Amino acid sequence: MIDLYTSPTPNGYKVSVTLEELGLPYEVHPIDLSSGAQKEPWFTAINPNGRIPAIVDRDNGGFAVFESGAIMLYLAEQAGALIPPDREGRSRVVQWLMFQMGGLGPMMGQANVFTRYFPEHLPSAIDRYRRESRRLLEVLDGRLADNEYLAGDYSIADIANFCWARVHEWPGVAIDGLDHLKRWMDAIAARPAVQRGLAVPPRPEASDESRIESARKMLA
Amino acid sequence: MIDLYTSPTPNGYKVSVTLEELGLPYEVHPIDLSSGAQKEPWFTAINPNGRIPAIVDRDNGGFAVFESGAIMLYLAEQAGALIPPDREGRSRVVQWLMFQMGGLGPMMGQANVFTRYFPEHLPSAIDRYRRESRRLLEVLDGRLADNEYLAGDYSIADIANFCWARVHEWPGVAIDGLDHLKRWMDAIAARPAVQRGLAVPPRPEASDESRIESARKMLA
Repeated sequence: MIDLYTSPTPNGYKVSVTLEELGLPYEVHPIDLSSGAQKEPWFTAINPNGRIPAIVDRDNGGFAVFESGAIMLYLAEQAGALIPPDREGRSRVVQWLMFQMGGLGPMMGQANVFTRYFPEHLPSAIDRYRRESRRLLEVLDGRLADNEYLAGDYSIADIANFCWARVHEWPGVAIDGLDHLKRWMDAIAARPAVQRGLAVPPRPEASDESRIESARKMLA
Repeated sequence: MIDLYTSPTPNGYKVSVTLEELGLPYEVHPIDLSSGAQKEPWFTAINPNGRIPAIVDRDNGGFAVFESGAIMLYLAEQAGALIPPDREGRSRVVQWLMFQMGGLGPMMGQANVFTRYFPEHLPSAIDRYRRESRRLLEVLDGRLADNEYLAGDYSIADIANFCWARVHEWPGVAIDGLDHLKRWMDAIAARPAVQRGLAVPPRPEASDESRIESARKMLA
């Protein structure tokens, strides 16, 4: 049994979707980010960085794993699925997973911050991160022009990038003209396991305004 | 033989230091970022994201690897060094590598941009990224209070975080009080292979001003 500490965010969904795709049993522990639970000592003992998601593998002596990309790799390797066993195939998946971890995630994250949450309105910062997010989505689109999925068969690399690409509208990043990206997003969104994972944890009933208010509190 | 495409930047050094530590033979191909070489078709065939570093493994049918974190994992696994063979030890290294890829690298990178290169002076953006960089360095310091290295023995996780932490002064991030971090940085900086890797490729003779000018051109 896996204990999953998470919140309804792109990085959280990366892990809940992975668990659903792998069919691994897990128990969800929702973390209320606006209350600062992720900074409490019991949680930083699991993840010293004070961020969701994190897991504890009860069947492996309570082994804790933090960083969404590291959790996905740990789970996929445990299950022997969503990543190929051969060295080159594995590396291709890791490359596109790192592309999301170091590129698409941080840049769309900053686009969210400056578009939605930052106390000052800084048009040049908004523009910087929207342009960089669009550029990264174009890189995905180019890859998907000749490939059904990012790295061979459907893998954790697809899940990781999908969980960010799907919310492009929130920071105001358009995907017009990126038809390969759209085809790939539609195919992944149609998977039942993905739909189950995107409902974990349940998103509290809240208006956009109250979501923004919560995120602003966390930034302060 | 490994072909290494790189520039004198923290992400480039992560790979040249790894190659030096592993004692793998490699040929350096310096990429002049200010000329836009990384956007030319011959290079995006190697790395579709148009970024350094990238490698081509001639002894593995010309297999190309992009994203510094993915390259480090590929090389360490090939050599059977700088990462432990057991599942938990391996995951610990991947976790702290992901911490650098998704956290310290992007946040210090943004601190560099707004402190040094951005066409507008935006004090609140500078402050945001300096504070987040300092927070992440404090997380490393906390980990290093009880551990000689980040994840068991000296590993690619140390190299990755070191290559960013060492340049904290460039974006104006102080490390006063972070004595465990300093002890760890000094120990790594003293390693001959690290010193060799940090000289690859040679840094062109240039003033800070001309470096800033080049970086500004790339942002535009």
